[in-house]
Amino acid sequence: MSDAIDPVTLAKRLIACPSVTPATGEVFDILEAALVPLGFEVHRFVAGAAPDGPVENLFATRGAGSPHLGFAGHLDVVPAGDGWASDPFVPEERGGVLHGRGAVDMKSSIAAFVAACADIGEHPGTLSLIITGDEEGPATFGTPALIDWMAARGIRPDMILIGEPTSEERLGDVVKIGRRGSVNLWVTVGGTQGHVAYPHRADNPIPRLARVIDALEALHLDDGNDAFQPSNLEITAVETSSNATNVIPGWARAQLNIRFNNLQRGADLVELVRRTAQAAAPGARVEAKISGEAFLTPPGPIHDIVSAAIEAETGLAPRLSTHGGTSDGRFLISLCPVIDFGPPNATMHKLDEAIAIEDLDALRRIYARVIRLALGGA
Amino acid sequence: MSDAIDPVTLAKRLIACPSVTPATGEVFDILEAALVPLGFEVHRFVAGAAPDGPVENLFATRGAGSPHLGFAGHLDVVPAGDGWASDPFVPEERGGVLHGRGAVDMKSSIAAFVAACADIGEHPGTLSLIITGDEEGPATFGTPALIDWMAARGIRPDMILIGEPTSEERLGDVVKIGRRGSVNLWVTVGGTQGHVAYPHRADNPIPRLARVIDALEALHLDDGNDAFQPSNLEITAVETSSNATNVIPGWARAQLNIRFNNLQRGADLVELVRRTAQAAAPGARVEAKISGEAFLTPPGPIHDIVSAAIEAETGLAPRLSTHGGTSDGRFLISLCPVIDFGPPNATMHKLDEAIAIEDLDALRRIYARVIRLALGGA
Repeated sequence: MSDAIDPVTLAKRLIACPSVTPATGEVFDILEAALVPLGFEVHRFVAGAAPDGPVENLFATRGAGSPHLGFAGHLDVVPAGDGWASDPFVPEERGGVLHGRGAVDMKSSIAAFVAACADIGEHPGTLSLIITGDEEGPATFGTPALIDWMAARGIRPDMILIGEPTSEERLGDVVKIGRRGSVNLWVTVGGTQGHVAYPHRADNPIPRLARVIDALEALHLDDGNDAFQPSNLEITAVETSSNATNVIPGWARAQLNIRFNNLQRGADLVELVRRTAQAAAPGARVEAKISGEAFLTPPGPIHDIVSAAIEAETGLAPRLSTHGGTSDGRFLISLCPVIDFGPPNATMHKLDEAIAIEDLDALRRIYARVIRLALGGA
Repeated sequence: MSDAIDPVTLAKRLIACPSVTPATGEVFDILEAALVPLGFEVHRFVAGAAPDGPVENLFATRGAGSPHLGFAGHLDVVPAGDGWASDPFVPEERGGVLHGRGAVDMKSSIAAFVAACADIGEHPGTLSLIITGDEEGPATFGTPALIDWMAARGIRPDMILIGEPTSEERLGDVVKIGRRGSVNLWVTVGGTQGHVAYPHRADNPIPRLARVIDALEALHLDDGNDAFQPSNLEITAVETSSNATNVIPGWARAQLNIRFNNLQRGADLVELVRRTAQAAAPGARVEAKISGEAFLTPPGPIHDIVSAAIEAETGLAPRLSTHGGTSDGRFLISLCPVIDFGPPNATMHKLDEAIAIEDLDALRRIYARVIRLALGGA
């Protein structure tokens, strides 16, 4: 067993780095310096250029062979925003609570996991950390680059725990075993702009856009399944190329979002929207941005391990959820089963982000149990 | 016969007053000083307060009894805008063309009519000028106030010529014998804003707005008649209370304009839109602003008189049109038959507004013929 690491001290050192996305440098130096004495082999690389980069990525590994438990996370944080009670990048304990940007999402989870690694010492199999500096951004140079890096070296964990803040009311009440996918779409119907007093010289696109909306609303995507609610399409906005009372606009546009379950694929939904829109308005243009595919880790060892570890420390049987926003699990699921579990998320992305010291200590103990259950050993 | 008046000199003196709507004062002083020596009794009054006032109005009358020909116009002008080749309020002749704000719309017409009155001298019946300082604005304190003023004194012309610029390609090619009405409407469908990932906690108004648009588009208003094209409804814009990709908006709105003929009344159209929108989306709110009712001067003496005067001077048989934007004819039609005729309108409201000196002289001769034909006499 290594010397113990105080997760609060390590979390504070990480929070003190203003590592707003995309992150590189000092915050990774601190993590590396904590991992090397624990016997981790640390690899770091920087990818991408402005504006979405440069992004630093870190892969650390200890031990060898199977089973291989990976822990994934990110050292970048969202911008602080104005109005904090204390400096967001000067970590501050007040009343048993640690304040600072990243205290919840998710520097404390990383500190807790490193402390758990120190607690465990020797173990069979492989333990790794897969840490990016671009989870809160477009992720172009983050976790996908780490996955490529691992693939090039034949590295593939058997299961991955992501330290994202998933707890809601109390530490341990919710883990995420999957997420819905999300795709944004823009359907633009063209026309010919003109003066409203001379409609024969113009071609109004708005009535055609209304028919597109009718047709999209009439789609039935699916009925959901045991793990997921039904997929859902919402029109989130409509706009026109002009707002003058005496002008027929040159184009009209609807913005859509589809949150979809694992019965769907993003590309198929884009094609369905395109077909539907063009049937209602020939020539309609459809642009799309798939934020992430739906994914689900089916019931298996990682569920049982994380649930058992949580229950042993907190007495709670966590709810296995697929709700809420996305995480880098959307990428990591291509490698192996993935589960998200971390601290209460009430202050995530908000002013005065904070974690209870008690929760941080409990998280360290839960993570240590996960490692023991996953790998066996001391 | 009075001493002749040079319409170019008078037009220049009027243009030199920067009488942007609402207008009062000096520009009216100049007109009064020109009319009094011609035997006109001049009445002036100022109505309203900021921001739509104060507005000056002038009523001048010469002679007595029937027939009574009125000439209506305005001394206010639209703002100059930036980028003129010469100072918009320093009238300048270049190459036989008089430049300045109001050269076309419509200080030159007023100067031409005053010069025509000087040319005529004695005549049977009554000749009057009905001149406002708020035709380009909301008109609240302008021509409607003049109509009230005249009504209180039992004054009612038998026919009115409005000096608005109606000519298109050449002086005399078009007169306006009526105008379509216009009404702007806004249909707002309410909902409940929420996060797109939790649609059961929100209520999306956009699908209901699309059904409102479908229903409005399906309306058939009328088939038009001999004088007017069919009334026409256009959706001019759509918008939502938010444009974020992850938010279901709290409301969605369509903006409409209806250009309508004399088979329709504005208030009836507003009621029709309200009924149609609320049938498609119960609770939809409809706001409306009627810019003007449709009006038409049916075939009669004033058509014949103006057409004959134009043809005698230009050789053109003018087209009797109901197209284009509105004028104070929408108010004056409550008194008697109304016709609009004035100079070519190509530079109206634009930079470098200008009238050919030749057209200004011809306009003076046409107006003089109108007076002779309408009133008889020398």
